[in-house]
Amino acid sequence: MEPLVGIIMGSTSDLPVMEKAAQILNEFKIPFEINALSAHRTPGEVEKYSRSAAPRGLKVIIAAAGMAAHLPGVIASMTPLPVIGVPIKASLEGIDSVLSIVQMPPGIPVATVGINAAQNAGILAAEILGTGNPEIMNEVVKFKNSLKNKIVEANEELKKIKYPYKTN
Amino acid sequence: MEPLVGIIMGSTSDLPVMEKAAQILNEFKIPFEINALSAHRTPGEVEKYSRSAAPRGLKVIIAAAGMAAHLPGVIASMTPLPVIGVPIKASLEGIDSVLSIVQMPPGIPVATVGINAAQNAGILAAEILGTGNPEIMNEVVKFKNSLKNKIVEANEELKKIKYPYKTN
Amino acid sequence: MEPLVGIIMGSTSDLPVMEKAAQILNEFKIPFEINALSAHRTPGEVEKYSRSAAPRGLKVIIAAAGMAAHLPGVIASMTPLPVIGVPIKASLEGIDSVLSIVQMPPGIPVATVGINAAQNAGILAAEILGTGNPEIMNEVVKFKNSLKNKIVEANEELKKIKYPYKTN
Amino acid sequence: MEPLVGIIMGSTSDLPVMEKAAQILNEFKIPFEINALSAHRTPGEVEKYSRSAAPRGLKVIIAAAGMAAHLPGVIASMTPLPVIGVPIKASLEGIDSVLSIVQMPPGIPVATVGINAAQNAGILAAEILGTGNPEIMNEVVKFKNSLKNKIVEANEELKKIKYPYKTN
Amino acid sequence: MEPLVGIIMGSTSDLPVMEKAAQILNEFKIPFEINALSAHRTPGEVEKYSRSAAPRGLKVIIAAAGMAAHLPGVIASMTPLPVIGVPIKASLEGIDSVLSIVQMPPGIPVATVGINAAQNAGILAAEILGTGNPEIMNEVVKFKNSLKNKIVEANEELKKIKYPYKTN
Amino acid sequence: MEPLVGIIMGSTSDLPVMEKAAQILNEFKIPFEINALSAHRTPGEVEKYSRSAAPRGLKVIIAAAGMAAHLPGVIASMTPLPVIGVPIKASLEGIDSVLSIVQMPPGIPVATVGINAAQNAGILAAEILGTGNPEIMNEVVKFKNSLKNKIVEANEELKKIKYPYKTN
Amino acid sequence: MEPLVGIIMGSTSDLPVMEKAAQILNEFKIPFEINALSAHRTPGEVEKYSRSAAPRGLKVIIAAAGMAAHLPGVIASMTPLPVIGVPIKASLEGIDSVLSIVQMPPGIPVATVGINAAQNAGILAAEILGTGNPEIMNEVVKFKNSLKNKIVEANEELKKIKYPYKTN
Amino acid sequence: MEPLVGIIMGSTSDLPVMEKAAQILNEFKIPFEINALSAHRTPGEVEKYSRSAAPRGLKVIIAAAGMAAHLPGVIASMTPLPVIGVPIKASLEGIDSVLSIVQMPPGIPVATVGINAAQNAGILAAEILGTGNPEIMNEVVKFKNSLKNKIVEANEELKKIKYPYKTN
Repeated sequence: MEPLVGIIMGSTSDLPVMEKAAQILNEFKIPFEINALSAHRTPGEVEKYSRSAAPRGLKVIIAAAGMAAHLPGVIASMTPLPVIGVPIKASLEGIDSVLSIVQMPPGIPVATVGINAAQNAGILAAEILGTGNPEIMNEVVKFKNSLKNKIVEANEELKKIKYPYKTN
Repeated sequence: MEPLVGIIMGSTSDLPVMEKAAQILNEFKIPFEINALSAHRTPGEVEKYSRSAAPRGLKVIIAAAGMAAHLPGVIASMTPLPVIGVPIKASLEGIDSVLSIVQMPPGIPVATVGINAAQNAGILAAEILGTGNPEIMNEVVKFKNSLKNKIVEANEELKKIKYPYKTN
Repeated sequence: MEPLVGIIMGSTSDLPVMEKAAQILNEFKIPFEINALSAHRTPGEVEKYSRSAAPRGLKVIIAAAGMAAHLPGVIASMTPLPVIGVPIKASLEGIDSVLSIVQMPPGIPVATVGINAAQNAGILAAEILGTGNPEIMNEVVKFKNSLKNKIVEANEELKKIKYPYKTN
Repeated sequence: MEPLVGIIMGSTSDLPVMEKAAQILNEFKIPFEINALSAHRTPGEVEKYSRSAAPRGLKVIIAAAGMAAHLPGVIASMTPLPVIGVPIKASLEGIDSVLSIVQMPPGIPVATVGINAAQNAGILAAEILGTGNPEIMNEVVKFKNSLKNKIVEANEELKKIKYPYKTN
Repeated sequence: MEPLVGIIMGSTSDLPVMEKAAQILNEFKIPFEINALSAHRTPGEVEKYSRSAAPRGLKVIIAAAGMAAHLPGVIASMTPLPVIGVPIKASLEGIDSVLSIVQMPPGIPVATVGINAAQNAGILAAEILGTGNPEIMNEVVKFKNSLKNKIVEANEELKKIKYPYKTN
Repeated sequence: MEPLVGIIMGSTSDLPVMEKAAQILNEFKIPFEINALSAHRTPGEVEKYSRSAAPRGLKVIIAAAGMAAHLPGVIASMTPLPVIGVPIKASLEGIDSVLSIVQMPPGIPVATVGINAAQNAGILAAEILGTGNPEIMNEVVKFKNSLKNKIVEANEELKKIKYPYKTN
Repeated sequence: MEPLVGIIMGSTSDLPVMEKAAQILNEFKIPFEINALSAHRTPGEVEKYSRSAAPRGLKVIIAAAGMAAHLPGVIASMTPLPVIGVPIKASLEGIDSVLSIVQMPPGIPVATVGINAAQNAGILAAEILGTGNPEIMNEVVKFKNSLKNKIVEANEELKKIKYPYKTN
Repeated sequence: MEPLVGIIMGSTSDLPVMEKAAQILNEFKIPFEINALSAHRTPGEVEKYSRSAAPRGLKVIIAAAGMAAHLPGVIASMTPLPVIGVPIKASLEGIDSVLSIVQMPPGIPVATVGINAAQNAGILAAEILGTGNPEIMNEVVKFKNSLKNKIVEANEELKKIKYPYKTN
């Protein structure tokens, strides 16, 4: 089983956030790998990883980083694959990380998701893979439909709340 | 020729920004369509467009919006396709638009690019298509390689600057 | 008893904030309903709810949402009723939610209140209803007058503080 | 003809922004008045105006202010009518004004619209009046429906754009 | 003993912050009073207090407020006395309160101090009184000189820290 | 005629902003001096000026600075006089300057006014002087009363605006 | 052993942050001293320290400060040595401190590092010393190489995570 | 003449800002070179440059970048030399660039100066070189002393301003 998605993080401290990306990819039955790489601590390894990603058969890279978050952009400069950036909240409520990831210069986009939004990064990866794979697209459709259920359940809960002037 | 990418904007005032997405897709020889839709003014049309996008053969949607920018997120809630959001600078230097697009709730990602970064949106669309199409990936590789030339030219220009203590 | 106000939230996690809206409406004897709806998870239900709200006799809709908060704006685009938006603090201290709600494009206003300000949303709903209903306006007048009491009580407390150079 | 809406601004320099509120109310055939009042320069007049507004038959007050924008909140503290606050962009891109208006303390809501969003303030006033007046609600419905036309026109324009790989 | 400084706050919840203003005034032997007033809940009392402050012999008013903090500015509009504004941190880390207090329109200044900086408000009041009262100025001089002691003590503590390469 | 207020700025480029402080002091008949000093370029002169200010008979210092604005705080650390800080807009819309002036540490307050609010700085200086000088307080009272006139004039202008549904 | 680096902080409350600067200098075998100084509380001592630093043989000064952080800039104005500023997070998530340190006027730079980034300040000091001292540069090289190890270890940890669809 | 300082920028559009760094180095008689490099467009060249910088005899690198400014941090990860980062104002008033440069992770500092503060970058480079070179330190001392002259001149100008109540 060859991985289609590579999840990259700079340290195991990002793992509690990023394992939601792993979980959703697993749920979608999409093979993936997880590696630690750092734009600043292991620039050589980042380059090796990025340049070999497409030849190795990876289709999407998810890269997480906090503060002056350079990892997603640096990877994006060395691969033709779509790179999804996950801004990690480590300081300034995460806004430094959002801006360091989303405001990329012309020519090198990073597909940025919300602060700590690792699950969304996994779903976006599935959507990308789904453009060429009907089974994965089907998983995405099922997943998005299932979101409804949370709302149905919430409505059940809300019905239990009682006030004299509440009518439902 | 069936379109693979749909570019959506809320008004023709976004066109000067968004035509860079069109230009780059054209350069990459990727068939695309351009439509005006508004999450708030034509919610019905947005739904129709979003729900029919995948069945019609579209693979990626690029949606631009400014201020309280709801269009990319609303589209994303009604399609399994990857949606790229382009925050338009219309007020507050564009930060309202960035946050309204990138901070999506769990389950519905939007692949956000930088403020007014329509060209990057087009490149990201190509990268996504390239995951299933080697020719398009090749175009992306060529394009990213060509970015070097600007730096080479810049170096030529910088060499012309003369100061007594400048050594190159 | 037909509801005049509809309170909408995206999940039961918003309930601890939003029940202050329910409490104040109840205190004002204004019939209301509470429902869970999500702009992104149940767009169809949102549309059904929004389009039927005025015909069903609702007069005001209070919608709460956090992060890239699209719910109030999406509802506002599909109803002629006034929509009150409550920005929920879920990330970035709530500023993402404020901007996503207040910075609506021309034509589709949302009456935005403060971060987590569900009680104020309820009072604003009452003020709106009061424009056509003297009894409700009277409740508002009484409520606003009662705010004085907190200040009177605070003054009582502050009198108990003793410093040699404090004169009152 | 008695006015239903009072538009308040602090100086004639706000008029270029605020006349959009006047135009839309006029278009909706809603009688209104315009006055200059300042929370800081004429606090007495503000009080007189606010306390007499409901007895005089006004239903909604629209108040514009910039920077440390106190006017809408001060009016709201002295009337049971709904007060719509329009943050004027005068410094810091208008964010000071947004926060000074929207972040009201418990008990005294201000219905805040976007920066310089005077037209939206007028529409919101109409929506509020429409809750008790089917003719006005009808005007709102017509207006919101008419927003579609701009999108239709935009689509016409966008069709004229020609690229070799543009398919529509 | 007639008060020279009036400390105003909107609720007893501000007391833990504001008692530092009381303590420093007491330390400086400056008679003061503390009252609860709210720009929004008791506008009439605010006016009465503000207009009578100078005739009653008050010289400086310290007013604390959080969020859309209108109290200092509203008081300043109704007295010729200097008004010191203390932004209380209640939301958004206090930046809403800073901007609502400091960004006053031309003609009505508020002397703004830092977020929750009640002690500094007390010192500033003493500095103002000191311009007409050499004894109070003397207290300020003594106080500012005493600040050195904290640094002297800190240096003593820092000397105790031992590292092989620490030289002092 | 001995100066009572010292206006300090870091360069003549601040003069277009700061001459409004001079004009209002002149209008209030308060003797003042203007000097250029820089916390960073002439720290020795700043110290000399600050330490001699009270002995020389100055009562208030107004200090303007932009960006990382240290001048007001540095002066405040070396004088018992009240120091009014004017944040100059030179970058980041002036927010860097506001924070660098207002967020002073415990013990050393700076009375901060709004961005570029030199006129307000002059009025605040007059209010401070007025606490010990009934004539100056009288000037302040007259000035604040005169602010009404602008509103009266604005109302005259607004009356000239004609719409079919405008009632005044 | 004469100190090459001076670490300055305003109070012992900064010590938990700043001791990381001491630890790294110690690790690099660079002699250093630690002192408490305050731009506002002991301006005279700051001047004495700053002016004597270069003559005493110091090569780099590391200065920490929070809020309206003036200390690094004030020191920089009185020494030809490079001054490294460490913004301490004390309010507003530390952004006030960053801006007060980094936005220095022309002529007086401060080498600013990240919020609470005392270790980085120590490394930067070593890099500066390393430009004239091959042994210290060697320590820096070794240190930067050692950063890899954390990534290697993180990769070991990440390998232990097991999901059915995880491939590595 | 071998260069001691390397100035790096991503495009010639940064030249109008960055030539102030060149001018000041030239004024200080410090040999320097200027090159165009891009973290994203020419990552290979960036690596080559960074790794060869110290062996080639460079002592300091000045790197300018805007938006999601990765260049200074990427260089810093591949050299033991001190790297000075100049945030270029290209969007969001430059705050995105400041945060992308200053908020570096532990281990890899960048000496950040103010937005567009190229002259300060040059002075900081001179200060760093001056720690090992008395002549350069002397130039810095002379330069900092010369800053006084601007203030002296400003004072001359300010003396010419005449108001009846201006005393100097």
